[in-house]
Amino acid sequence: MSTRLSQLFVRTLREDPVDAEVASHKLLVRAGYIRRQAPGIFAWLPLGLKVRRKIEGIIREELEAFGAQEVHFPALLPREPYELTGRWTEYGDALFRLKDRKDADYLLAPTHEEVFTLLVKDLYSSYKDLPLSIYQIQDKYRDEARPRAGLLRGREFSMKDSYSFDYTDEGLDASYQAHRDAYERIFQRLGLEYAIVKADAGAMGGSKSEEFLHPTPIGEDTFVRSAGGYAANVEAFRTLPPAPLPIDGLPTAIVHDSPNTPTIQTLVDLSNAQFPREDRPWEAGDTLKNVVLALTHLDGSRELVIVGIPGDRDVDMKRAEVAFAPAEVEAATEADFAKHPGLVKGYIGPGFAEAPVLGETSATGIRYFLDPRVVDGTSWVTGANQHEKHVYGLVAGRDFVADGVVEIADVRAGDEAPDGSGPVELARGMEIGHVFQLGRKYAEALGLKVLDENGKLVTVTMGSYGIGVTRIMAVIAETNNDGKGLIWPKNVAPFDVHVIAAGREEVVFATAEALVDSLEESGFDVLFDDRPKVSPGVKFGDAELLGVPLIVIVGRDAAEGRVELWNRATGERSSVGLDEVGAALLAQ
Amino acid sequence: MSTRLSQLFVRTLREDPVDAEVASHKLLVRAGYIRRQAPGIFAWLPLGLKVRRKIEGIIREELEAFGAQEVHFPALLPREPYELTGRWTEYGDALFRLKDRKDADYLLAPTHEEVFTLLVKDLYSSYKDLPLSIYQIQDKYRDEARPRAGLLRGREFSMKDSYSFDYTDEGLDASYQAHRDAYERIFQRLGLEYAIVKADAGAMGGSKSEEFLHPTPIGEDTFVRSAGGYAANVEAFRTLPPAPLPIDGLPTAIVHDSPNTPTIQTLVDLSNAQFPREDRPWEAGDTLKNVVLALTHLDGSRELVIVGIPGDRDVDMKRAEVAFAPAEVEAATEADFAKHPGLVKGYIGPGFAEAPVLGETSATGIRYFLDPRVVDGTSWVTGANQHEKHVYGLVAGRDFVADGVVEIADVRAGDEAPDGSGPVELARGMEIGHVFQLGRKYAEALGLKVLDENGKLVTVTMGSYGIGVTRIMAVIAETNNDGKGLIWPKNVAPFDVHVIAAGREEVVFATAEALVDSLEESGFDVLFDDRPKVSPGVKFGDAELLGVPLIVIVGRDAAEGRVELWNRATGERSSVGLDEVGAALLAQ
Repeated sequence: MSTRLSQLFVRTLREDPVDAEVASHKLLVRAGYIRRQAPGIFAWLPLGLKVRRKIEGIIREELEAFGAQEVHFPALLPREPYELTGRWTEYGDALFRLKDRKDADYLLAPTHEEVFTLLVKDLYSSYKDLPLSIYQIQDKYRDEARPRAGLLRGREFSMKDSYSFDYTDEGLDASYQAHRDAYERIFQRLGLEYAIVKADAGAMGGSKSEEFLHPTPIGEDTFVRSAGGYAANVEAFRTLPPAPLPIDGLPTAIVHDSPNTPTIQTLVDLSNAQFPREDRPWEAGDTLKNVVLALTHLDGSRELVIVGIPGDRDVDMKRAEVAFAPAEVEAATEADFAKHPGLVKGYIGPGFAEAPVLGETSATGIRYFLDPRVVDGTSWVTGANQHEKHVYGLVAGRDFVADGVVEIADVRAGDEAPDGSGPVELARGMEIGHVFQLGRKYAEALGLKVLDENGKLVTVTMGSYGIGVTRIMAVIAETNNDGKGLIWPKNVAPFDVHVIAAGREEVVFATAEALVDSLEESGFDVLFDDRPKVSPGVKFGDAELLGVPLIVIVGRDAAEGRVELWNRATGERSSVGLDEVGAALLAQ
Repeated sequence: MSTRLSQLFVRTLREDPVDAEVASHKLLVRAGYIRRQAPGIFAWLPLGLKVRRKIEGIIREELEAFGAQEVHFPALLPREPYELTGRWTEYGDALFRLKDRKDADYLLAPTHEEVFTLLVKDLYSSYKDLPLSIYQIQDKYRDEARPRAGLLRGREFSMKDSYSFDYTDEGLDASYQAHRDAYERIFQRLGLEYAIVKADAGAMGGSKSEEFLHPTPIGEDTFVRSAGGYAANVEAFRTLPPAPLPIDGLPTAIVHDSPNTPTIQTLVDLSNAQFPREDRPWEAGDTLKNVVLALTHLDGSRELVIVGIPGDRDVDMKRAEVAFAPAEVEAATEADFAKHPGLVKGYIGPGFAEAPVLGETSATGIRYFLDPRVVDGTSWVTGANQHEKHVYGLVAGRDFVADGVVEIADVRAGDEAPDGSGPVELARGMEIGHVFQLGRKYAEALGLKVLDENGKLVTVTMGSYGIGVTRIMAVIAETNNDGKGLIWPKNVAPFDVHVIAAGREEVVFATAEALVDSLEESGFDVLFDDRPKVSPGVKFGDAELLGVPLIVIVGRDAAEGRVELWNRATGERSSVGLDEVGAALLAQ
């Protein structure tokens, strides 16, 4: 049974929707695949639903191939399980919360770790039941602050989320690898370029985590990769620390007046003018910049912290968020400074060994952290905690110590990969998959234990694995179009072939009808543009927009038993005899 | 690829869940198909999901067969469209409402009339685009006051909802009939007994409405049917009014003292003792009972109304709710009476023609309604609006009139069907489908118009059609079990056949493995109980509980090349040669 365009519930639009910025959003709306209902919330028209189902089918096949089993959870869940793991609070404003008529708290689930854990706890009790991998494909909810780019970041979105359950670390490694391998096959089948990058587990907890990033200039994530094979998102990038230097024999630190040097550049200029080095000019990298950040902890308390980073680096707030998670991070405000008159803005430093200003045993009590590059024995120009004064030759490990090492400095092309595989380059990517080793965090919080071989209760170790189904569809659309319209890869296209009756003559329509019937009989899923009063030009334009990759045009040569085959992916057009169309389509 | 019970994510339970009252709820939980997450909210395990998908598949096939097209809407929707039709308020506490981070109002949709209407408005503009039938299968939400009976009345449930769009009344009739016919085929394929009953459109508005009720003692709905083919739920039942009687010559009404007669029974007793009739004793049906109800209107205002019904009838509050919808109805409280000292409790009556107490032009201003049986010329014993006084021979149409006719009296077996098809009987039923002619209510509220043949804008007329997918699954389970477990009909069973390796001998397992492989090759979907250390008795018990209708037991006769075939639906067991198993299964 072919689908006739005259009957299909679709309308194409000539104009881009006003709120659309990226190609996939524009084209999926213009081609009648989706329609906006609210910010980041869409309805799915028949064409959109067909493509989405094909993507889901590929995901299901690859997961079931290694034994994962499908289940289905509600979107509406009670607060309690999320309270036990702390995520009811941790999710902040991104969680849709609501109350039922009895005033009980509920949420629209953004992910389902808690309830999968509880379900396994309900059903299983022995190591013999494990390993287990279960998954669902389900509509999820996150109240994004800035839903954007159509399906790329929605507030309602379809996700495949899997969870693995093992009772040994080796078991978790194997389950993790099985998912990782399946993800590679899924993205390969979908024709999606991807990089697997080390990721920070962030709010999800857990130990090991990798993201599948699709490299694209519209990606929201920045990641780094080295020629030697290292890849990580910038949040997870770890600086290769230099070796410590000997401290013995380094000159004593000395304080100089440094009028009008509140910035690194002014400080470098003044230093070169007034206190020139013998070996080379002062550079920004010789200075130690002390950045004051305000943390808001989960209990609502606010804490100032200071981080010393080399003066040639800027703060990367995303890295800072990871460094101080689950606290929220922002730059300190004037009000914060007002509460700490000891902090002399523009001239802050860690102080001297005999009078430390920052750090554990310091006068201010403010915690002080250092960038990993500030190893013992390195010598710095930094603030002297007095207006328009800096100290020169302040040596880490001799004159100052920190409360810890954190990575909040930006990552740059040319930085060395931590595994020694050489300098990294930076690229933009869109997250299309994520694999986590959660470990025992959720099982511990929710009491999921099984009896092991010796009859001893052991806590289960878990993995969590996600693929954004609707986002993937947008990424495919983003990658597969030519500006005039979509060009779907064959295995997710809404139809195998789009047959156009192009002309007014009866022979054109009769030929097209017969061709459509014979293609359907041969097993092709056909979209038939049978609209009687629509011009060939409009039909071609719609075909380009809709994006079925193979188009057959039944036109003026119909009477001679010939039609035109148009491969949208290659752009090739060729004349084909009517009885060769099926074979010609298969050969594309 | 067969499914092995040793690997399947399922656990059977020996005990009924404590909160389960009905068989389907008990069995679906005990057999590991579903698990409770919150009141009326369930997770779906692999077996449950498989059955659900098969039911969905049958629904999809029958809808697509007449040209309905599938779309998919979000569950989370903005308030605005529901505000325009009034349903944001009308739904009351049954609607899950929430706010996003920007304090905008959202809801979890209980049905989707509004957004389907707006979607068609967005895409279509001409009569040539119509008729159109679009549908979705989607998780819906209603905050039921008393979620009960497992999947039979949940707060999250899967529903197939369709909507039809036409520009003529005849078109709507045809679309309605197409859905109605498809529903009949769906329920027939699912093996579900059903009655199609007239229904009241209630809060959905619209003109014509029928319910598909599955007759069952645990049904929440009462419906009536006559031998002549009339069927309606009690809310929609319309009383066949008697013909008016001549008023001329009827004796004048007379007031009698009636001490201590606050109830119908005491009044009838006193009447027979003190004022006996000549022709026959007084009966409850000779009295007019005046029931005081309190309406709460949508704007929150409270209004007292009084309804006069024959004294032998009780009030059916469900019928009263329909009669006064969208206002809420309850019995008047003491506080209500206190505000109306003119109402003498137990002795209320409409008053006399010269001094009407109730009705439009009355002293109290309270609206007065009558049961349809109280036609002009009927004569009644009723309250005289004084303590311990009743009036005898009060004639409708002569001594009192009403502000309208309403049906709040109960329906009884033996009442005449309104179409003259004879007396009705009462039965309990569970709603499994519903077809509505919405008419132009939603299209008008939301401005859905198309250009007709003459280029004139006409308002579209709509239908709305629902099937509760998860409820249907429960009803099938409710109907198909034998107390020991489920017995699924073949076309929705999770597997075609359940093969049991029953015994410890190696030959049993080897034979079973080979049989499973060969059945899978022949196209059967096989569940294989391969658990090595589980006794045959436990395996048989699990097989009965799980409910695959055909079971093959590979046991002691395996060495002789024979197995046992067990048909759970018929209870028949027979010995079958190994090479005949496939044919024997097909013959069941």
